[in-house]
Amino acid sequence: MGPLPRTLELFYDVLSPYSWLAFEVLCRYKNIWNVSLQLRPTLIAGIMKDSRNQPPALLPRKALYVKNDVRLLGQHLQVPIHLPKEFFFVIFKKGSLTAMRFLTVLKLEHPELLEKVSRELWMCIWSRDEDITEPQSILAAAEKAGMSTGQARGLLERVSTPQVKNQLKETTEAACKYGAFGLPVTVAHLDDETYMLFALTRWSCWHIFWERSGWALCLQL
Amino acid sequence: MGPLPRTLELFYDVLSPYSWLAFEVLCRYKNIWNVSLQLRPTLIAGIMKDSRNQPPALLPRKALYVKNDVRLLGQHLQVPIHLPKEFFFVIFKKGSLTAMRFLTVLKLEHPELLEKVSRELWMCIWSRDEDITEPQSILAAAEKAGMSTGQARGLLERVSTPQVKNQLKETTEAACKYGAFGLPVTVAHLDDETYMLFALTRWSCWHIFWERSGWALCLQL
Repeated sequence: MGPLPRTLELFYDVLSPYSWLAFEVLCRYKNIWNVSLQLRPTLIAGIMKDSRNQPPALLPRKALYVKNDVRLLGQHLQVPIHLPKEFFFVIFKKGSLTAMRFLTVLKLEHPELLEKVSRELWMCIWSRDEDITEPQSILAAAEKAGMSTGQARGLLERVSTPQVKNQLKETTEAACKYGAFGLPVTVAHLDDETYMLFALTRWSCWHIFWERSGWALCLQL
Repeated sequence: MGPLPRTLELFYDVLSPYSWLAFEVLCRYKNIWNVSLQLRPTLIAGIMKDSRNQPPALLPRKALYVKNDVRLLGQHLQVPIHLPKEFFFVIFKKGSLTAMRFLTVLKLEHPELLEKVSRELWMCIWSRDEDITEPQSILAAAEKAGMSTGQARGLLERVSTPQVKNQLKETTEAACKYGAFGLPVTVAHLDDETYMLFALTRWSCWHIFWERSGWALCLQL
């Protein structure tokens, strides 16, 4: 028997294209890396507020860079990213509250569907420029991921319950406790240590953690 | 005969530990990648001002993350980084103006020594916690890199001449024109396109540029 899988938590928001990229990489490699991947739907607006950080797109030169960077990374990682036409309006005005609450209740009730529905929501906003603040878009994403209309409607009706609101808040607070100032955040739990990595810039560093914990891995990204 | 080398410009400041990491990676790989590396000493304070960006270390949670990240990357890339004790004072108060002007005049007069002296200055500030605002530190770095005391003193006397001041300003403006909002910035010149990459987070993307330009490379970082 090989070593037990280590746990990686991925804190993400479908409003964040970098979260999508990290999500796809981790979903692809989790078996190869022998990791137990825990998907944690988080509210990026809550993280920014709590850390007093500013979205990079607020600075014109950064916004230009981020747009190109996301396109290039999409090509490199073969994730079909196409930026929405009204980039700023989508990010700063529309937000992702209902969608992230939907993923939160989905995780509580049908965790086995969380990966697929999350991906479909990213496809909506970051590939097909659809409006995820519309309940119809959320329902359509859920159905594409294999849910029945009834199932999806049932969950959507629960997004404003205190249980769901509190759960999303708790997850967002958990990310903040790990030191998050943006998303995605990946947290690795090793024997007696916990490491937090921001964005998807440092995959090649993971091997240091694994080696320290006596767990050899080969990441080629 | 193989293809002609492509040009990579590296805009850097010795005040930036990420610049050091990018610099070492590019110096190591330039021959393997068949690139002509042009080192361009730049003033990070000028870039931040022009782009209206804020140093990440101003946000407490980011500062904590950056410190750990720099340490980890140093281990990963085998660059002997040890953070200065008075991290904030070094970055925000002391700055790097004289050191960067010294590298500017060095590039004009002895470009063959630029790589070595730059490395020695990073060793001062980011490995041995020495004060690079002291002329003695700059002279010592120059001598370690192989310059005579007389040569080094001669250059140091010229750091405040209009020629040197203007040259550093011009290089900083050139980085801004490429869209810089921090350092390091690496600019790749291909046949008919120019690409700017910020920091050292996207090496794996370069292959897209090369492939587009019909120039195959294999980067494993």
